[in-house]
Amino acid sequence: MSARTPVTEGPPLVAVPHDDGVDAAVAAARRVIEALLATGDGTALDMGTVTAQLHSVADSLDRAAPERDRRLATMWQGEGVTRHDPVTGPENALAPPLTLHGVDDGSIRGTVTLGLPYQGPPGHVHGGISALLLDHTLGVANHWGGVSGMTAELTLRYLRPTPLFEPLAITARQVSVEGRRIRAVGAISAGGRECVTADGLFIAKHLPRPD
Amino acid sequence: MSARTPVTEGPPLVAVPHDDGVDAAVAAARRVIEALLATGDGTALDMGTVTAQLHSVADSLDRAAPERDRRLATMWQGEGVTRHDPVTGPENALAPPLTLHGVDDGSIRGTVTLGLPYQGPPGHVHGGISALLLDHTLGVANHWGGVSGMTAELTLRYLRPTPLFEPLAITARQVSVEGRRIRAVGAISAGGRECVTADGLFIAKHLPRPD
Repeated sequence: MSARTPVTEGPPLVAVPHDDGVDAAVAAARRVIEALLATGDGTALDMGTVTAQLHSVADSLDRAAPERDRRLATMWQGEGVTRHDPVTGPENALAPPLTLHGVDDGSIRGTVTLGLPYQGPPGHVHGGISALLLDHTLGVANHWGGVSGMTAELTLRYLRPTPLFEPLAITARQVSVEGRRIRAVGAISAGGRECVTADGLFIAKHLPRPD
Repeated sequence: MSARTPVTEGPPLVAVPHDDGVDAAVAAARRVIEALLATGDGTALDMGTVTAQLHSVADSLDRAAPERDRRLATMWQGEGVTRHDPVTGPENALAPPLTLHGVDDGSIRGTVTLGLPYQGPPGHVHGGISALLLDHTLGVANHWGGVSGMTAELTLRYLRPTPLFEPLAITARQVSVEGRRIRAVGAISAGGRECVTADGLFIAKHLPRPD
């Protein structure tokens, strides 16, 4: 995409977190994950109390949760975008979460800033986390392109370290559809420079959703 | 590796969780993550209370946590294996966590069962999560091989869907070192069949650890 071409950012292509219900609890859980990592061992804080509080929350959630097979079915119903995936999912505390928008040139884009839980090399994003974000983003780009599928092959190239604590631009686009073979490419950039690129081959098939 | 060759599994190559301190709190946080996802919206449980409880835990952790730059330095000190990474780290609730062992044939291996937070296609592991696990495992295989570095290129091939809720075997080995160029390969298998393979090129350099 040329930097000189103005683009119009469309509506989000992924589920957007709301400020109440489970999404709000998940946002609080993300704070807990990051704060536990920021604390580390050797703290003066009584970790036995923290542990007991978290088990108590988990116990009350477990008691209220539907049976697993039922939840596996219901989580796939709805508006066609997932609320539970580990990249964009407002219900998944593993997800940063990343919000992706369609752009009128056919590409998609999003911005995310990653903290301590996503660290690989000192002060930088784990290469596998970049792979996770890009695999998912290429999949969403295929949706936006009109034909999506499952990843068959994914190649990541790491051009320079990806920084933590700075806004990262994530872009992707579908580049070809030949029969059932779909190709999409994407990149993670920081400060206008590409850090990681991805090139994916996808096959236009989907696993059945449980019912 | 031939299935006919008996191998001896060595000591763990990654940090092993202990049952108290921050590791125990992180294990409880993993329960919360999974239970939130298992619950979803529409539950009868008062999510406002859950949200407040989690914010309260995060607040007390935040108050006790060292300043970020200091923590970024101290988390890299110690026994040479990380306790904070998102794959094996006992202090990181994003990590399943995966424990990896060295094997006397030069390979490394581990077993992990993944639940709801790691879902991609219905009932199966997210392709990007497989990439995350394999990128990290190849890096540990390079340590075990004697020369490690940073990922330069990683190619994942998805042979069949990787199931959730079943033990997955993760294996890797360093295959060559030529100057600063290191090659390592790995795979995730379920029920004895390979689901995802990885082929990585690494460059023997490391970012400086903060002090």
